[in-house]
Amino acid sequence: MGDTVKGKPLVSIVSAGLSKFGRRTGLYGRELFVEAVNEAFERCPNLNPRKDIKAAFIGMMGESFEHQGHTGPTVLDWAGLLPIQAFRTEGACGSSAAAIRCGIFAVLSGLSDVVLVGGVEKMTHRATSDVTEYLAMACDFPFEQWNGLTFPGLFAMVATAHMHKYGTTEEQMAMVAVKNHHHGCMNPKAHMQKEVSLEKAMSSRVIAWPLKLYDCSLITDGASCLILTKPELAKTFTDTPVHIIGSGQASDTIGLYERNEYTTLNVGRLAAEEAYRMAGVTPSNIDAAEVHDCFTIAEIVAYEDLGFCKPGLGGQFIEEGQSQIGGKVAVCTSGGLKAKGHPVGATGVAQAYEIYLQLTGQAAKRQVAGAEIGLTHNVGGLGATGVVNIYKRD
Amino acid sequence: MGDTVKGKPLVSIVSAGLSKFGRRTGLYGRELFVEAVNEAFERCPNLNPRKDIKAAFIGMMGESFEHQGHTGPTVLDWAGLLPIQAFRTEGACGSSAAAIRCGIFAVLSGLSDVVLVGGVEKMTHRATSDVTEYLAMACDFPFEQWNGLTFPGLFAMVATAHMHKYGTTEEQMAMVAVKNHHHGCMNPKAHMQKEVSLEKAMSSRVIAWPLKLYDCSLITDGASCLILTKPELAKTFTDTPVHIIGSGQASDTIGLYERNEYTTLNVGRLAAEEAYRMAGVTPSNIDAAEVHDCFTIAEIVAYEDLGFCKPGLGGQFIEEGQSQIGGKVAVCTSGGLKAKGHPVGATGVAQAYEIYLQLTGQAAKRQVAGAEIGLTHNVGGLGATGVVNIYKRD
Repeated sequence: MGDTVKGKPLVSIVSAGLSKFGRRTGLYGRELFVEAVNEAFERCPNLNPRKDIKAAFIGMMGESFEHQGHTGPTVLDWAGLLPIQAFRTEGACGSSAAAIRCGIFAVLSGLSDVVLVGGVEKMTHRATSDVTEYLAMACDFPFEQWNGLTFPGLFAMVATAHMHKYGTTEEQMAMVAVKNHHHGCMNPKAHMQKEVSLEKAMSSRVIAWPLKLYDCSLITDGASCLILTKPELAKTFTDTPVHIIGSGQASDTIGLYERNEYTTLNVGRLAAEEAYRMAGVTPSNIDAAEVHDCFTIAEIVAYEDLGFCKPGLGGQFIEEGQSQIGGKVAVCTSGGLKAKGHPVGATGVAQAYEIYLQLTGQAAKRQVAGAEIGLTHNVGGLGATGVVNIYKRD
Repeated sequence: MGDTVKGKPLVSIVSAGLSKFGRRTGLYGRELFVEAVNEAFERCPNLNPRKDIKAAFIGMMGESFEHQGHTGPTVLDWAGLLPIQAFRTEGACGSSAAAIRCGIFAVLSGLSDVVLVGGVEKMTHRATSDVTEYLAMACDFPFEQWNGLTFPGLFAMVATAHMHKYGTTEEQMAMVAVKNHHHGCMNPKAHMQKEVSLEKAMSSRVIAWPLKLYDCSLITDGASCLILTKPELAKTFTDTPVHIIGSGQASDTIGLYERNEYTTLNVGRLAAEEAYRMAGVTPSNIDAAEVHDCFTIAEIVAYEDLGFCKPGLGGQFIEEGQSQIGGKVAVCTSGGLKAKGHPVGATGVAQAYEIYLQLTGQAAKRQVAGAEIGLTHNVGGLGATGVVNIYKRD
């Protein structure tokens, strides 16, 4: 599949790290970040972190969770990386994909040959009602939050619109959960490593109809990081770099109520178009993709927005098994936000971590045979931010 | 003074906008942002915003103020700039200087020839106790916030250390307030356009000894923006660009308790060193500087960290009138955070806006005659983030 690739590497990933995802009781987010960074540094003994790294971009969504903003210096302090310049990037659940984009800018600028990008969120110590409220700050305050809307309700509207327009079924949404839980069972870092049957998913309690408990991603603690550099420097750090060959990002209205269309996320389509064009690949070239399955309907919409299938056929795509390992494109081999978990600020870079493992043959039981081209699709809010990156093995 | 400059322009500022600073009752932050953007667009009729601008970086410190995160798309939505990619950058009170840095990276990357950088914060609708709590999220949670420390207390420790080590006096700190209020009287966009006498400042109520009411900057609403581009494109947009010729940023411990030294902010020194080196200028070349006078002691420390005077002589520097308009270097001609106001996320870019006015001869009553080289010094938290930029007129 790599034969058709025209895109030149923008930047190269020379190492990656991920904390264990889950309920990490008794740890601060900064400590989870150290766990991720340590893995990345151990994986890359040629890197002299304090000397080589020139900038750090850290995605975090909400300072309310830990009553702690100023994430950049906070996590770099704990990781022993001062006085490296540090930025927090925030784009809601797309915060650390935004960090990757900033990292790409910084490397290409010529001012920072090696950068660290990462993400972190500590969530499980708060009451679920608090978490729901803090997450809702990523949707519109005066017209959505104030009226009691939170993300399950917003994505439920996307689901009902998709059901109405295309005949998508509750069973098809539940199948996304079944698949991603199955994949998560093969990922030792996943929050939930537990199979779920279609019956169990379908009979779980309703959160916001038609979305049930198993249609929703997990409240999770976690951190993630990547080391990026110029392609021409990659081999000084590793024999097995992964190259980012395409990247796109777009914005849309903060409020769902401002959209003409609820069944697609325009940011996903625009970001994918830009990334595909830059990479010189088409959807059929993608071997493995981590998409933003914050709710099962979001994964179905992502199949369509990314061109894995035509609009309206996302339900059929999951039903036919096209998105499982061994299908047309292996989607969310990590377990996704659904089973690996969704520490919101960490998610975008955690998706890239999974693709890094897949393209370097380190994904163990969930390895996609011969994977050469990967994609990540990270969405913030109800699609007000969307980032798509495309990766190629060396 | 420009004769000695060796630095080449990194990027050029081709337009700038600032909302009126103050108590902007009944407006959301996004509406203040539109006010700033409209000024920048009116100032630059050759710019076709939706077509030319390729990325936006928006500094905002706290989602708690308006219960609204996801600032990038929120403000771009209101400004009619969708679907341009948008990032929120957060570095506490240095959030929008961080946005400038990201904008520099984006322009130099070759991926985004024209970028919008800005900042916004809406604060005055919240109770002062809430504001103090939200701001405190930029210092360390487990060891500072939890023990009741907030920023007035933290900067009071800096002040007492400076008094103890160098003999700096309460009167010298109050003189900073007198000067900046005097400058603010000449800035129609300043929050407080009111002279304050030394006696009044000295007799104002104690907030955290030795800091009194007039030693503290203002809780203010406001927004700011700049349009940046490659130097070679600048003249297609304006006849009077201002060039950024040096830029530096550094990080330090999130907690003051982790420092060996309380009388200097290491990030200011490191960022300035980098910026001076890149620009090929020395402190004596600086005609106008906007420094981070969140408390009067912080301006005195800034004089020393930026090399305007030797360590320990900051108190003498203000006492001798060296930092007023007509002195050795005109510091905070806008009125500074002290009198213009400190809508935290907007401050870094608002400082650059003032320097843009000074270097294009648009500063009216507060114009520094013949200003050629300017500097901004923006600090986040208790100096966990520091950014210094150096500017040159065309």
